[in-house]
Amino acid sequence: MTGDPRPAAPFVHRLRPTWGDCDPAKIVFTGRIPTFCLTAIEAFLEHHFGYGWFVQELDHDTGMPFVSLNMDFRAPVTPRHDLELAVWPARLGTTSVTFVVEGRQDGTLCFTGRFTEVYTRASTFEKQPIPAKARAILEPLVPV
Amino acid sequence: MTGDPRPAAPFVHRLRPTWGDCDPAKIVFTGRIPTFCLTAIEAFLEHHFGYGWFVQELDHDTGMPFVSLNMDFRAPVTPRHDLELAVWPARLGTTSVTFVVEGRQDGTLCFTGRFTEVYTRASTFEKQPIPAKARAILEPLVPV
Amino acid sequence: MTGDPRPAAPFVHRLRPTWGDCDPAKIVFTGRIPTFCLTAIEAFLEHHFGYGWFVQELDHDTGMPFVSLNMDFRAPVTPRHDLELAVWPARLGTTSVTFVVEGRQDGTLCFTGRFTEVYTRASTFEKQPIPAKARAILEPLVPV
Amino acid sequence: MTGDPRPAAPFVHRLRPTWGDCDPAKIVFTGRIPTFCLTAIEAFLEHHFGYGWFVQELDHDTGMPFVSLNMDFRAPVTPRHDLELAVWPARLGTTSVTFVVEGRQDGTLCFTGRFTEVYTRASTFEKQPIPAKARAILEPLVPV
Repeated sequence: MTGDPRPAAPFVHRLRPTWGDCDPAKIVFTGRIPTFCLTAIEAFLEHHFGYGWFVQELDHDTGMPFVSLNMDFRAPVTPRHDLELAVWPARLGTTSVTFVVEGRQDGTLCFTGRFTEVYTRASTFEKQPIPAKARAILEPLVPV
Repeated sequence: MTGDPRPAAPFVHRLRPTWGDCDPAKIVFTGRIPTFCLTAIEAFLEHHFGYGWFVQELDHDTGMPFVSLNMDFRAPVTPRHDLELAVWPARLGTTSVTFVVEGRQDGTLCFTGRFTEVYTRASTFEKQPIPAKARAILEPLVPV
Repeated sequence: MTGDPRPAAPFVHRLRPTWGDCDPAKIVFTGRIPTFCLTAIEAFLEHHFGYGWFVQELDHDTGMPFVSLNMDFRAPVTPRHDLELAVWPARLGTTSVTFVVEGRQDGTLCFTGRFTEVYTRASTFEKQPIPAKARAILEPLVPV
Repeated sequence: MTGDPRPAAPFVHRLRPTWGDCDPAKIVFTGRIPTFCLTAIEAFLEHHFGYGWFVQELDHDTGMPFVSLNMDFRAPVTPRHDLELAVWPARLGTTSVTFVVEGRQDGTLCFTGRFTEVYTRASTFEKQPIPAKARAILEPLVPV
């Protein structure tokens, strides 16, 4: 993920890791971190669109299943600080969008991830081009 | 839980249920709701003590394992609104504390729960009386 | 739950708790245990009906939302042994069924729980009487 | 992951996805799938070493934190069938091991993943070379 352009002031979702998120190594369990990132992407959508995947699927018949995720872990995450999750769209394809998520605690970069979703018609599960409204919102947020 | 005294202005923890918290019935999966309540109790402790279970266990050698939980579900929870979790201590024993948690969305009471923990010395897993500092903080918060 | 009749040979679902199920106290996190019980109830249904909640909801338009859960925790659960979850229906009402779940590891009773669900028409979310087929299967399994 | 050598008969961990693993799109929530893979890697270790991460950390002072994970999703996962998770070590470095996990349901490849862990001394959190016993077990399992 190194070398990719990064927005000056990306959307940031904050959450506090809990006791139950941690494993006996006293750090957040690896398996929880992809879910933290998905929560941050959903918060990004809510912030920019006014609704997340739930409303999009149920009220707008639009799904966004994931086709890939890639994560690098650099430092442990704990419940001692808020986790700040910066989120932005890094690339738009015809039907797909790739989000980057960076997780920081107390100034330290803990992990980075890339998550690619495709747009679908929820009722038929068929791919569809990125809806015009979504493209109009996302395109200006892709850093160049 | 009906009939118990209720504080006028309990601590409230807010969280937004996510897409991934929901099941195919399009409501938050029952199994997630006890965890929401534990997150709210941990936020209550952080608010009133300055730290939650993680710091309490690691830095203060004090554990708080659960001995019981009881929940009634009254209305479904969804990602359409924030979930407001009111938390207060309902009863202090010699070694135990019982928390009540009430979950509300958009003005509707969705669930209530009672959760009882005992204080332990974390390193030995042995019960201990409620520490004096904890009793001093919790006792005035028990509604009468 | 003490004093309730108990079947001689209840259905038992086995699972192995994982590293990620545990918290820094080196025991399974309390918030995971209700989900273990729900997994065991779903396995009970699959065993006795041939399908669990997913197929019941999607193919048979029948939902089973929970109205209450009550759990007592007696001994910690760890990943050192399989967890044996005994499940049986303890009580049938007009629209509701109450399941008991007992969790044992290496011969030790770790927790007991009671979980009450109501039958609904999934598409309308309205309560319905226990379907005749379900009553015919469940009634003989209630210990007397 | 295409083009990598694949063992003829890898270790396979089976699990049944549950109702609560699924989201309102009626498929297993993406955020659950990395955890399924970690469960399968832990089962692989238990099978080949006689213990998983929990015993390894607590009894053998050996940790295995993750440094990266990469997943491609090809087909949805549901509770209608068991999920078969094939696991094998694809590459051993000096301190790291990379596992491949393939998930199949009813004959269909649903996802593939690569997960890299480093060996650490658990008590100090410092990297250590792959222990000799671990290398002796893992090396013959790397397909060539």
